[in-house]
Formats: sequence, C-alpha cells, structure tokens
Amino acid sequence: MKQPFPFSAIVGQDEMKRAMILTAIDPSIGGVLVFGDRGTGKSTAVRALAALLPPITAVKGCPVNSENAATVPEWAGIDTVSTHEVPTPVVDLPLGVSEDRVTGALDIERALTKGEKAFQPGLLARANRGYLYIDEVNLLEDHIVDLLLDVAQSGENVVEREGLSIRHAARFVLVGSGNPEEGELRPQLLDRFGLSVEVASPKDIDARVEVIRRRDGYETDNAAFMLRWQAEDAAIREQILGARKALKKLKTPETALRDVAELCLALGSDGLRGELTLLKAARAYAAWRDDTALTRGHIRDVAPMALRHRLRRDPLDEAGSGTRVVRIVEEVLG
Amino acid sequence: MKQPFPFSAIVGQDEMKRAMILTAIDPSIGGVLVFGDRGTGKSTAVRALAALLPPITAVKGCPVNSENAATVPEWAGIDTVSTHEVPTPVVDLPLGVSEDRVTGALDIERALTKGEKAFQPGLLARANRGYLYIDEVNLLEDHIVDLLLDVAQSGENVVEREGLSIRHAARFVLVGSGNPEEGELRPQLLDRFGLSVEVASPKDIDARVEVIRRRDGYETDNAAFMLRWQAEDAAIREQILGARKALKKLKTPETALRDVAELCLALGSDGLRGELTLLKAARAYAAWRDDTALTRGHIRDVAPMALRHRLRRDPLDEAGSGTRVVRIVEEVLG
Amino acid sequence: MKQPFPFSAIVGQDEMKRAMILTAIDPSIGGVLVFGDRGTGKSTAVRALAALLPPITAVKGCPVNSENAATVPEWAGIDTVSTHEVPTPVVDLPLGVSEDRVTGALDIERALTKGEKAFQPGLLARANRGYLYIDEVNLLEDHIVDLLLDVAQSGENVVEREGLSIRHAARFVLVGSGNPEEGELRPQLLDRFGLSVEVASPKDIDARVEVIRRRDGYETDNAAFMLRWQAEDAAIREQILGARKALKKLKTPETALRDVAELCLALGSDGLRGELTLLKAARAYAAWRDDTALTRGHIRDVAPMALRHRLRRDPLDEAGSGTRVVRIVEEVLG
Amino acid sequence: MKQPFPFSAIVGQDEMKRAMILTAIDPSIGGVLVFGDRGTGKSTAVRALAALLPPITAVKGCPVNSENAATVPEWAGIDTVSTHEVPTPVVDLPLGVSEDRVTGALDIERALTKGEKAFQPGLLARANRGYLYIDEVNLLEDHIVDLLLDVAQSGENVVEREGLSIRHAARFVLVGSGNPEEGELRPQLLDRFGLSVEVASPKDIDARVEVIRRRDGYETDNAAFMLRWQAEDAAIREQILGARKALKKLKTPETALRDVAELCLALGSDGLRGELTLLKAARAYAAWRDDTALTRGHIRDVAPMALRHRLRRDPLDEAGSGTRVVRIVEEVLG
Amino acid sequence: MKQPFPFSAIVGQDEMKRAMILTAIDPSIGGVLVFGDRGTGKSTAVRALAALLPPITAVKGCPVNSENAATVPEWAGIDTVSTHEVPTPVVDLPLGVSEDRVTGALDIERALTKGEKAFQPGLLARANRGYLYIDEVNLLEDHIVDLLLDVAQSGENVVEREGLSIRHAARFVLVGSGNPEEGELRPQLLDRFGLSVEVASPKDIDARVEVIRRRDGYETDNAAFMLRWQAEDAAIREQILGARKALKKLKTPETALRDVAELCLALGSDGLRGELTLLKAARAYAAWRDDTALTRGHIRDVAPMALRHRLRRDPLDEAGSGTRVVRIVEEVLG
Amino acid sequence: MKQPFPFSAIVGQDEMKRAMILTAIDPSIGGVLVFGDRGTGKSTAVRALAALLPPITAVKGCPVNSENAATVPEWAGIDTVSTHEVPTPVVDLPLGVSEDRVTGALDIERALTKGEKAFQPGLLARANRGYLYIDEVNLLEDHIVDLLLDVAQSGENVVEREGLSIRHAARFVLVGSGNPEEGELRPQLLDRFGLSVEVASPKDIDARVEVIRRRDGYETDNAAFMLRWQAEDAAIREQILGARKALKKLKTPETALRDVAELCLALGSDGLRGELTLLKAARAYAAWRDDTALTRGHIRDVAPMALRHRLRRDPLDEAGSGTRVVRIVEEVLG
Repeated sequence: MKQPFPFSAIVGQDEMKRAMILTAIDPSIGGVLVFGDRGTGKSTAVRALAALLPPITAVKGCPVNSENAATVPEWAGIDTVSTHEVPTPVVDLPLGVSEDRVTGALDIERALTKGEKAFQPGLLARANRGYLYIDEVNLLEDHIVDLLLDVAQSGENVVEREGLSIRHAARFVLVGSGNPEEGELRPQLLDRFGLSVEVASPKDIDARVEVIRRRDGYETDNAAFMLRWQAEDAAIREQILGARKALKKLKTPETALRDVAELCLALGSDGLRGELTLLKAARAYAAWRDDTALTRGHIRDVAPMALRHRLRRDPLDEAGSGTRVVRIVEEVLG
Repeated sequence: MKQPFPFSAIVGQDEMKRAMILTAIDPSIGGVLVFGDRGTGKSTAVRALAALLPPITAVKGCPVNSENAATVPEWAGIDTVSTHEVPTPVVDLPLGVSEDRVTGALDIERALTKGEKAFQPGLLARANRGYLYIDEVNLLEDHIVDLLLDVAQSGENVVEREGLSIRHAARFVLVGSGNPEEGELRPQLLDRFGLSVEVASPKDIDARVEVIRRRDGYETDNAAFMLRWQAEDAAIREQILGARKALKKLKTPETALRDVAELCLALGSDGLRGELTLLKAARAYAAWRDDTALTRGHIRDVAPMALRHRLRRDPLDEAGSGTRVVRIVEEVLG
Repeated sequence: MKQPFPFSAIVGQDEMKRAMILTAIDPSIGGVLVFGDRGTGKSTAVRALAALLPPITAVKGCPVNSENAATVPEWAGIDTVSTHEVPTPVVDLPLGVSEDRVTGALDIERALTKGEKAFQPGLLARANRGYLYIDEVNLLEDHIVDLLLDVAQSGENVVEREGLSIRHAARFVLVGSGNPEEGELRPQLLDRFGLSVEVASPKDIDARVEVIRRRDGYETDNAAFMLRWQAEDAAIREQILGARKALKKLKTPETALRDVAELCLALGSDGLRGELTLLKAARAYAAWRDDTALTRGHIRDVAPMALRHRLRRDPLDEAGSGTRVVRIVEEVLG
Repeated sequence: MKQPFPFSAIVGQDEMKRAMILTAIDPSIGGVLVFGDRGTGKSTAVRALAALLPPITAVKGCPVNSENAATVPEWAGIDTVSTHEVPTPVVDLPLGVSEDRVTGALDIERALTKGEKAFQPGLLARANRGYLYIDEVNLLEDHIVDLLLDVAQSGENVVEREGLSIRHAARFVLVGSGNPEEGELRPQLLDRFGLSVEVASPKDIDARVEVIRRRDGYETDNAAFMLRWQAEDAAIREQILGARKALKKLKTPETALRDVAELCLALGSDGLRGELTLLKAARAYAAWRDDTALTRGHIRDVAPMALRHRLRRDPLDEAGSGTRVVRIVEEVLG
Repeated sequence: MKQPFPFSAIVGQDEMKRAMILTAIDPSIGGVLVFGDRGTGKSTAVRALAALLPPITAVKGCPVNSENAATVPEWAGIDTVSTHEVPTPVVDLPLGVSEDRVTGALDIERALTKGEKAFQPGLLARANRGYLYIDEVNLLEDHIVDLLLDVAQSGENVVEREGLSIRHAARFVLVGSGNPEEGELRPQLLDRFGLSVEVASPKDIDARVEVIRRRDGYETDNAAFMLRWQAEDAAIREQILGARKALKKLKTPETALRDVAELCLALGSDGLRGELTLLKAARAYAAWRDDTALTRGHIRDVAPMALRHRLRRDPLDEAGSGTRVVRIVEEVLG
Repeated sequence: MKQPFPFSAIVGQDEMKRAMILTAIDPSIGGVLVFGDRGTGKSTAVRALAALLPPITAVKGCPVNSENAATVPEWAGIDTVSTHEVPTPVVDLPLGVSEDRVTGALDIERALTKGEKAFQPGLLARANRGYLYIDEVNLLEDHIVDLLLDVAQSGENVVEREGLSIRHAARFVLVGSGNPEEGELRPQLLDRFGLSVEVASPKDIDARVEVIRRRDGYETDNAAFMLRWQAEDAAIREQILGARKALKKLKTPETALRDVAELCLALGSDGLRGELTLLKAARAYAAWRDDTALTRGHIRDVAPMALRHRLRRDPLDEAGSGTRVVRIVEEVLG
C-alpha cells in the first residue's frame, strides 16, 4: 500500500491542520469535525495525520495498546508483559461496518470450537490511545454515531451483549469528515466534537495549480515526492512532542477562565462543554507556540474552531457561524 | 478508570441534588427524571451519586444482591450463603443495549454445552436494591422504556421467553436524563417517574467560572481534587443514613393527607400516584431535615419536584409547569 | 413478593368490582374491559381479584389445570392422575411477551437434546379455567390481541406451527385495562369483551384522603392492613360460590328474552352477542343478589356494562355511550 | 370440545344455507364468500356445515385423504393400503398461521435427526376433498389469500421451497367469512370465489328472540338441544347425497347455455368464470330440487349468489349488486 | 392431474396463439406478455401450449436438460451420458416462490450431512430449453422479475451467493400473463419481452356460448373432449417443426432490414431491441406460412405484437398502442 | 457461452469507445459511467471491452490476481509461486448480489467443517487489476454502490466483519451503465467516476440498418462474424499496449497544469478531482494518439468526458452539461 500524502505537503487549509495538531498535543480536547465539499482533500488530510503522529509505548500483544501491565485488561489473557514502540494507532471506520466490529463481540470461533464465551475486541479497542477516523460521518448510521460519541466521551467501551459484560479503555480522538450538502448533523452530536473546521477548494489559480502539481507528483513519482517532504513532517512531529511537555507547565491566569466564560455566555453557546474545550484548545495552542502562559490572544485564535459548531442557528443573522464567533470575540475580548 | 466527579462539588443544581438524596432515603418514592439542555451536567450528577451512596449488605455471588438467604432466587444455584458489604449498585444502561441483556435471557453457553435451559440474569438483576441510570431516556427505544418502568413499578422482573419462565426481585430507583429538545416523553411515562427536576447552565458569570475551575481541577489534578471533596461527600452519606432511620419514626398528621389530596385536586393532576409520591417525598425530606413530624412546609418544599410532570398541559397558561405548581401550592397551602 | 391489595379495600369503583364478580360467577359472560385514566387503580383492582377468587380442583402437574383425568391432554404425558386444590389461576401477560410464550411452542430443549418434537405449553395453557390479565390492552400488538380474543371466544388454543399441530382447552376470562387517551380499540375487539366498565379518580376530597390512607397503610404497615381486610374478602368469596350454585336453578321468564331483544334492537347494537351477554350477566347478577328468578330490574342494572361498548358512535349525540344506554333502558323497560 | 351448533337450527339465513348446500353437491362450483357484520352468525354457520356433511371413503393414514391406492402420493410412504369412512374434512385456518403450515414444509425433525429431506404436509393436504374455512378473510395476509385461491382453483398444491419440490392434490371448497366494514377484497379475489352471500342480524323481534332462545338452549342444555335437531340435519345430509347422484343424469338444454351467456353479457360481468359457475350452481340446485332437467327458473334462483360479486361497481346505480343482478335477470330471462 | 385444455380448442384469441407459435419456432424472439382482464383464459392458453410443444432430446438426469455431453455442467456430476426424448419443459413459477428456488442455491442437505458445498439447481435450470410461465407478472416481486428478465436475456444463470459461484445455461422463453388493472409494468421490463398480445372475453353471444360449451365439455366429459381435439393439436405441432427447418433457409432481402428500421424510427420505439425482434418474428411467421422469403407483408402482420409494448405513451393520442402501430405501419409500409 | 460482440463492430458511439480505451491505457483515471436509454447497446459495449483487453501476468491460484510473490496476500495460503498469462479480469456484478459476495466473507464451509475462521474472497478480489462492470448502477442498492466506489478509490478492500479483519488490493476500473430515466445518481457518486459518456440510438436510417445487419449477423452466423472483426480488435489491443509505454515518457508542460486549473475554475466544478482526472485522461489520449507531449488540443478533446458529470446543475442554462463544457472549453482555451 502506498504511504499517505505528507501532512506538510497539503496546500493551505491552515485551520484544519492546526485543529489536528492541537488534538495531537492534548487528546482530551476531543474530536475534530471537518466540513467541506467533496474533493477538498478532507480524507487526504486525515490520512496524512497518521504518518505525522509520534509513536507510543505499548504492551506487546495488548488488544487495547495498554501502556503498561497495570492497564492490560484481564480478558486479554496476556501473561508476560513486555513493551515496544508502535505508531499512534489511526483506525479507519470502514463503510458499513457492523456494530459488532466496532464494539467487539463474542468470539464465535472460540465459542463454537471450545465452548468458551470469550471477547473478541473491535475497532474501539484498536483505536485506544490513538485516532478513529470516520469518512462522511453524515452517512454513518445514527446508532453507530451515538455509540462512538458516547465512548469517545467516557473513554470507556462497555459491551453488554450476547451474555458478555466487558469494559475496556477506549480513549481516542474522533475525527469525522462531513459534507454539509448531505444533511446536517444533530446539534447533540455537533456539541460532542471538540473542534470543527471548514475546508474548501482554493479559489486562487496559483494555489490550484500547486495542488495539482503536488498530487500529480505524489502519484507519478511517489518515492521522490515522499522524500522531499519527510523532513517537514518530522519537524512538526518534534514540535508536537515539545508542546506536550510544555503544556504541563503552562500557566493559566484567573482572567483566562473569566474570558472563556464571558465569551461563551455572550455567544449563547449551550452547556458548558464549550468553555472547557476552548480553555484546553487555547492552552494546547499556547504550548504549540512555545509560550509559557495562556493569554487572551491564544483564546482569540482558537475560539472559532472551538465554538463555531455550538451556536444556535440565528435566522436573522445571515453571517455563517464562524463569522459570528469572530465578531463576538472582538466585542468581548476587544 | 477515573473516579466520578464528587457529588458535593457540583455547583448549584440544588433541586436535582435534593431529589436524588430523597430517593436515597426512601427508594419507594420512585425514579427521578432530570431534564435539561445538553452540557448541563446531568450525567455527571448521576454518576456522582454512585460514589455517595452508602454500602449494602448482600449475599456473596447472588446475581440480584439479595440481603439474606431467604431472598436468594432458586435459579441462582447458591448453596452456601455468606454475606458481605458492597457499594449500592448503580447500573448504567449502555446505549443500544438489547432487551436480552436488560431482562436476562437463556444462557446460550450452558444451553449449547450442557443442554440445560439456564437463566442468565441481566441488568435488571444487577440493579436490584440500587439505581438504574438511563442517559437520554428520549433516545431509548419505546419497548425498553416501557419494560423498565413496568419493572421499576412492580419491583419484579418477569421473564417469559425462549421457554424460560423466571421471576426475580428488581427493586431499583430509575434515574433518567432527558433533553426536552429531543422530543417529549409520553404522559404515561412521565407519571411513572416519582420526581422530576430541571437543570440549566448557570447564567451567572461567577458560577460559570467556578464550574470551569472545578471541572478543570478535576481533570488536570484529579487526586488532589478528589481528596478536597471527600469529607463533604461523606457528610452527606451519613446524613442519608440518619434520615433513613428517622423516617420510620416520623409522624404523619391527618392534616397532611388532606393537604396532599387538596393540592393534587387543585392542580388537576391525573390519577393518585401524585398524592402518594408527594406524601413520601415530603416525609423523606422531613427526615433529611431531622424533623420529627411532617409539616405543611415540607409538603410545600417538595411539591414542585413531585407534581411538576403530572400536570396536563394548559395552552392558556404560559407559565412553565414548575411555576404553576408553586402558584397553586401558595393558593392551597397558603 | 408482597400480597396484592385487598379487593374489598378498594374505595368506590363499584361498577368495576361488580363486573369482575359477575364473571367470577359465570365465566362464559366473557372478558371485562376496564377503561380509565392512568393512576385510577385499574391494575390494582385486577390484581386484587386474584386473591379473592375461590380455589379450583386440578390434576397435579397438568399444564392446563384439568379438572380430572378425562380432560388431561395427551401431550402432557401424565401417567398417574391425582388432584389437589389450587388458587384460581390469574395469569399476567408481561409486556412484550412473544407469541410463542402465549400460545406455546416447540420445546427447543427437548428438540435439541432428544430430537423430539414436544410441545411446551404457554400462558394460554396456564390461564385455563382462570383469568388472563392484560395491562394496557391498547399497547399490545394487534396480532396478539386478535389471537387472545379468538382463543377466549372459542375456549380452545389451536397451535399450528413449527410442525406442531396441538389443541388444548383454554377457557379463561380475559381482563384488559386500557386508557382511552392512548388510542381506541377496534369495534371488532370491543364487541368480543363481555362487559366494560369505566373508572376514574374520585373527585371527592374525603374519598381521596381515604384512598391515600389505605394505600399508605398497605405500603407502610402491610401485615396489619392485610389482616384488617381478610374477613371482608372472604365474605365476597363465599357469596360468589353461593351464586354459582344458585345460577343453575335460576328461572328465566320468556319476557326476559323479549326485554333483552327489544333493548338491543332499540340501541342498535350490532350482532347478537349483546343479547346473550346481557342475558347471562343479568342472570349472574340475580344469583349474586340471591334472587330466584330473573327480573327486569336485574337486566336494567347490568345493561350499561353489557352494552356500553357495543353502540355505534353517534356523532349527533354528545352523551357518552353509558348515558345513552341508561336513557334507552328507561325508554324500553320503563 | 362441544359439538357445533346444528345447521338446521340456524334461524333464517336461507341464501347462505343454500349456497353451502350447493357446494356440497358439486364442489367444483368453487368457494363461498359470506359477507356480514360482526355477530351475525357467519362462523357458527360454517362450523355447523361440518357436522352436516356426508362422510368420505379414504385411505388409512393418507395425509391427503386419498380415495384409493392410485391417488396416494409417493412421499406419504404408505406401503399397505386399506380404506375407511371418515367425516368430510373441514379445516379451520387459525389466525396467524404461517405459510409453512398451510402448504407444508420440510420436516425439520427428520432433517435434523435423520438427515433426510422429507415433506411434512400442511393444512392444504388435510383439507383435500373437504372444506377449508377462513374466518375474516379480510384480515388474512395477502400472500396467504393468493396462495389459497391459487391452489383452490388448480386443485393442486405445488411446494417449491427449502430444496423440496412436491405436488399433491388439494381439492377443497374454500369458505371465507368477511366483514365489509373491515376493508374490501380485491376484485381478482372476489372473482375466484364461486358463490357469495350476505347475512345480517334479523330486524324482527320474534326472530331475534328465537335466535336467543336457541343459542341459550345450545349453551345451557347442550345435550337435549343437539338431540332435538339431529333428525333435521340428517334429512339434509340424505338430500345432498341424493342430489349428487341426480346431478350426473341432469339434462342441460342448449337454451340454458344461451340464457347463461346472455345474462352475463347483460350484466357486464368480467371474464367467463361467471357463466360456468352459474351453469354449475343452477344444475346443482336443480338436482337438489329433484328436477330432471335444468330450467330457466333454476338459473334465475341462483343467479344472485353466482354473479353478485362479479359486477363492476357502477357509481350511478345506487342499488346494491344483489339488487342489480335480480333486476337484470328479470329483464333478460323475463 | 387432468391434462390441460387443448390449444386448438381455444375459441378465438388468434393473436395470442400466433405469438406463442412464433416463439416455439424461434425461441430467440424472446418472451411473450399476455395482457387481459381476469377470466379471459390467459392461464388456460399458456398451459395448453405445454401439451402442444414438440419433444426435445436431453441427457438423462441432467438438471439443465442438456442436449449432449458437451453441455452438461460439471457440477451436475453426471459420469455416463445417455440421452432420451422428453417433453419441452414448461415450468410454472409458483406464487411466492423464493429467489433460492428460482436461481438454485446451496444444497443444505449435503452441506449439513457431508460438509460439501454443492449446488442445488432451481427452476431456471429446469426451464432451460423450454418455457417459464409466470401467472400475473404484476404480482411478482420486482427483484424476482428483474432476475428472470436478466437471465432470459443473457441465456445464462449466474449464482453468486452463499459462497457458491455457479453458471449454467438457462435459455427459455418467458411467458407472462398480466392484468393491466393491477398496475403497470415498468417500461424497462416491457421492452425486454419479445412480443405482447392482448386478450379479451368475446363480446359475441355465439362465441361465448361456444366457450361455455367447450369448457363444460372439458370438465364434464374430459376423455371424449381431449380425444376430439388431439389431431388438431398434432397438426399444429408438425407445422411448428416444419417451420423450424424452413427458417434456416429463409431469405432476408436488404429492403426488409430497411423496412424494419424505418418502421421503428417512425414509431419512435426506444432502443434497437424492437428492430431485431420484429425481424425475427417476421421471419418465423414467414416460415410458419411456408414462404421462402421474408416480405413486407410478413413484417406488417407481426408488427403490432412486436412493437405495441415499446411505444412511449402519447398523451395526445387516445388510440391504444396497438392501433397506433397499425396506423403507422400503413403510413410507412403502405 | 457465445463470445461477446466485437468492440470494433460497434456502430458509432465513438466517445464511449474512447473513454473505455483511455481507462485501459491508464486505469488510475477511474471508472466510466455510461448513460443512455434502454436498448442503446451499453451492456454490449462493456462486454465487448472484455475481449479487447490485453492479458496480464498473474500468480497461479492467487485469488487477487497478484503480479508476483510480493503481492500475494498471506491469507491466500499459496506456498509455491508461479505465474501465467491470464485475460484481464472483467467481473460482472450480478443483480441482487449480496454484500458478502462483493467484499468476501467468512468461509462458512471451512468454519463448519474445520472450525477455522478463513476468508473467502469475493468479487472485489477477482476484479483486482481488471474491470468491474455494473449494469444499471441506478438499480443497485446504495450501500453496495458506496462500498464499490470507496474501494475503487482507495484500491484496497477492507473487510471487518464476522470476526475477520482482512485487507487486500482491489484496484479495478469501475464501469457502470445507467439510464437517466430511472432516477439520478447522487452528485457524490457522480464525482467519483473518472469519466462519463452518453450514448443514444442512431437517428440515421443507414446507421440503424447497419446496426441491425451486424447484430443479425452476430446472432445468425456467429463464427463468420467473429472472424471478420478479429483483426480490428487486435489492432486496437496493440495500440493500447503501445500507449501504455508511451505514457511514461510523455511530457507535461507547465501550461497544461494551468489550462486544466483554469478550465475547472471557469466551469465551477466542485473539488479537485476534476483537474487531476482531466490531466490524466488528456495524457492517456496523447499517448493513444502517439504524441510525445501533452497539448491544449488533447485537453480540449477529453474535457467533456472528464468534466460533464461534475457540473452543478444550472437551472437558467438549458443546454445539457456536455454542451456547457464544450462552450466553456472554447472560451477558456480558445
């Protein structure tokens, strides 16, 4: 299989790239929802992210990629624990996947041959500590989406079926791509994604030519092309690792909490998820920028991606929700 | 898995917290329905309740947490009975759970390997003597909701399927959270919940900042945060245990029966469940307040949560049902 | 499990209690349909009936409660017949029961382990010679309702499925409770219930207080409460047994047939089931009253419960169907 | 089980009784469709027919009631053939019967235990040479009705399923009862019934009293009642047997063919089934009347039941289809 | 089972009989669709065709009636090949047939007993080299119709299911009867039938009397009736065999191709199937008429049955499609 | 089975033939969608393509036609690798194919007999390195279409079901035929086909006569006809092989990239798939024309088939999308 297109070779689409990087720094920010017309490179970007992410340390043979013996689930049946470095898991949800494969299910083979009721882990297990990617989240069946969001939020997969009663860690960042033309997502679902970004085809002729040139290079002379962008991807990877460390020491002034609360109140965003997400995203951004304290500027910069999808629709305000966030950020934060 | 957010660290939401405490004092009050927009901390509160509840004495290995040998069901196949202290069970109904797992079903493994028709208990068994929590009760399939309410009211789970004919105790408090935006519940269902409360995001900037600060503390410095609130949770637990004892000696004056009946008649609440629930909730509240006799004041204080969801909709009265209860309570009880 | 609420402790609801007693005297009157809002004690009353009914003599181990060897079905496989006294069966149709469990089905266990095609009897077998109770008949699936009414009328359960071809006696009184708010029953179904009654919450404050006091007594001091009402329930039971004997000797004057026919013709009730039911109900009522002959007064008293649900809806007549029956009874019978 | 109500004890309903007798004389006339409101005794009449019919000679153990060795199907596996007298089969189609049980299906028991693909005959086999009764044909699923009419017309049951490929004789008279209020039958289905009759509750008070008296006698003093009507039923049975013999010698004048054709052309009945059915019904009626030749009078008398259900609806003609047949019969046949 | 009604004894219906004969001469013309009201003898005619057709030479035991060893499919497992004469297969599609039985499927018996994945051929196999008859094609499920037309056109049955991957010859003439009142067929389906004819009840009194007389003779004195028409059926059979031979030598002048193309262009029939079918039908007709070359007259005579069902509906032209074909044939061919 | 109609004997339909040839030169162009009324020879053309395509080198017994040992999947269980020449696979998706057969599934036979969980490859495996043909793509179920397009684009089949977790190469050109009258395809699907062409019946009488003559020759004298066109098909095959080699050396001037980008921007085609496809199709066309560098003329010639199906519908522009592409190509490229 061909390697994915390099993350750094993506032309433009800065907000999308930034959102993805922030979740790599602090996965507890939650998922990223990428909106855009067909053909705007959504899938390419997510697949590119996979190659960019730093490796993780995991117990060998552990179906949930546990970091150490303490977190290996009992049902995994691993007696001797040793660890190794593996790529950050990026699990692709195939179209038409069954609920069984997502959550895991009774291992029919063992049930039939050995008469044992064993658990066969699913994609949620494999995605633990990594990313779970859903292309065209609009097309996924509702009950699968509900299930994914529920697990993504609780960080735990609870399986109660076929006489099984299993729980395992399932902490992952959900990345969904969607096409607004194919039907809207329910507000409840939107709210559960941490960040959202919009992408579009470049309208500028030079940018378009550059896109074609790079895609053409990637397809017709793949080896050379990958080599060309290797270093740039590696630089981003290093910067993510640095930001993860910096994040722990980052200072959060009292005024930042107040800024975040006032902003959300002014925007009328429902619930309190917006505040927390904005706070975390702003911190991750500050760490990425190598700053030592959270400032109003950081909040201002990530507010659109953290809040855009949490606004109630305002029929009298024709501006898109991104624009409304920007305008109110200016009013509140000056 | 991280411990749930401490019950006592929840900012505001007093009515919700009170309703939950009353059902902990007298479970026969029935379930609690928590209404509120997304992000208002409904799930957090219910999960917090789990850590707060006092332990129960149960037979070891008993699938329905029986208190003593007399109540262990025959099908459990327990020969030697010994008891131990266990946490009050709080069972979480996972999204998309099958009816089989709820009610219990034929144990397929034993059927296939031993040719025996044995019963495999379900979540209703596990929830006996505890709490059963349904997140977003609006999203649950109707037939599962009907089944749960039926069992919650009768206190018994009757399984008639696959050639099984099993009954077992299933006395639990049903706690449901719901979002009124996602569709109404049928009046029949509303009526079967003992109490109902409404929650909302705080509109006050200081309260919001406090919420963010505590959630952020809980997430970024969990150990310290849990320690900080441990004593406050323990105090509530002790007070519940005290109230349970006091409840048995509490006096109910004849005038209280009349007050309750007059209030319900004036409100036009259908049926007689409202009266009984109000009576019980008022008594539990009196016990919680350490009072020795039930007074009109106790009735007044819990009337909204006991009656709010039992009013017929009045299209000419724009006030919410909570407000109408308060107004009529004032008219009737003075 | 707690004993049901005593029949005699039910406050008011005289028509409902009378209807249930009449079917206990002559089960061929057919089922009783109880209409009423939620919370009006419908389920309580039906469950109370169970404790009231006189015991029956039945063959030990017989799945259809046969009275003697002659009526034990061949498939029951009972070799040595002995009889004992058992309570009148009152079978509760659990919500979401499968057709299999209602009619009986292939015994899968025996099929799998012994390769035999044996019949496993269902709830219809268990209800033979007793009562079958359906809570909220409106919510039951149509095909189950059709099946139940069909069997209730023919007195025989015919099972033609999975290669089985079984018949057994299934004579029982069907008792259904329904809430008119939750959708109407089809006229065809209404017609097949022998009697119908309406219940409502008392509007009188003293009655309501009495209801609360009794329910509260039942719940908080159960043993004393049950003792208090034991004798009253026993008296009713004796009176039912006496009426059963008296019924056989009761005289039916020719004029009674004519009264019944004229009444139904005047009411325009469809078909002839109304006449026969009214005749039987009036006779059972006469026997209950310890009268030796059927009179016009008996017919008048039970006409509403026998005919109310058989009237065609008259859009120009605003009076409820019960009121119309009473008015026409006065015109026809004077 | 109680014996059915005697055919001769049915009050009135002469057309229905005549139609049933004619199909007993010549089963090739086809089925009878009985229309009427609920409670008009449709089911009673059909069940009464069963007791009236003369016995048939059949091979012992033959699942399709074959008359002699030549017609026993090979799959029946009968080695030694002997015959006996059995009642004319009257098979009742139970509500909710599965297609499997109707047509017959793979014998699962033999398949599982012996690994053989054997045929287990269904109700169509059992009904061969007799009657198949469907109560409320309107409520039967379309595909079952289609299947029944198809087999009834071809006289053969073709089973192509589960790897089986079986045919057997299935010649029976289909009797269906229906309630026009519960939805109309498709014209295609109507056309395939040979005769149709309408029944109604008597509007005359004496007749109603007589109905009640007889039903009451049947229910309260069954043995005496059955004895009372035995001879009358036997007389009808003898007359049917006589008519069957007479039918073979009956003369059909050329003018009768022309009368029949002209009548159907004048009525505009679709297709040619009407002519043939009318011819056969008139002949059977002549034989029943003990006449030696078919006359115009016989045709006139049975025309309504043979043609009523084959007319196209005429929106400008308010008269019922029965009335229209009578009027046109008068115009055409004088 | 009674023999079918003789083909030659059908009164009138000349176009239908001609269409059936043409497909017997050249099966590649494709199927015949017979439209008509109920009771017009559609089914009778198709069943009559079965008795008329000449026998074929086929390999003994071959499930697809192969002509010789070369065409016996491998999966049939026939080791020694010998041939015999068998009637042309006429397979009747029973109502409610499953897709399995149509296409063939995994032989479950062999799978279970021998663990082999063997193919059990279906009705398409049995119909190879013969006729497949569908009564009331309107009532057949869409996916079965699609499947049949697909196979009828390609002459090959492709089975890709349950792990099977089987192909076998399935060349047959599809004959469908339909009632236009019961819903139209999709144009795509119409186009795939080679010929279409319309039938109706005769409006002439003498013809109707003749129809009744013959049907009555067939039913009441079957043996004599069959003998009476035997010779006429044999004559048609011989003429078909002669025409098959003559067809190979028939000359097709260049002008005929042009006539056919011009006619279809003028009629605006979609696609090119009309031209080819018309050409083949005209040739078969010429051979039937014992002519040595195709002429414009032959084309004119069969044009309505070949093209009638391929016209687009013209809302401004009230004439039926048959009439439009005749009119345009006159304009184009003079 | 008869050989398909020769590709070179197809009358007219030049654009369709060109599109198919281009994908044979560069399969990464993507699928071809052929639109047209019924009877316009769509299926014929696709089937003709099969016979035209050059053979490929493949590992013997490899279920995915791997070129060499390195690409044979592990689950195929091939120990000794040897290669042979096989025809380019052209896989036909049969109507009503199940998802199992498309993607492959658990091998039930091995699961049952050996208790192994083995993968049984499906049609996607068989189509690897070749063509997958869907007749009437409009009629295929949505989830199958989605699945096919997804795999066609990623070149990999991911199977996550029944406890299997399999991936294998599935690079094929999807060819779909569709009838616009039978419902439109979703824009998302259209966009994923590389090229689209429209076909229609010839309106010219000579062309139609030629079509009939050739089809008639093909059907009545098949052997001679195939021989007649053999050489022409071979010539096309050679030219394709030559173009494949030439393609690698073809020069792409910078201006071509700009032309392609400007054209797509002017047309307002969504996304960037249009640009890349157009670039590739133009290059393949240049290679086919034996030119050494890509020119504006090549782009102009293939622009309609590459872009026609990517335009947004413009309700004010009555011209078909093909015409709009041509007009704008003229404006932009001069």
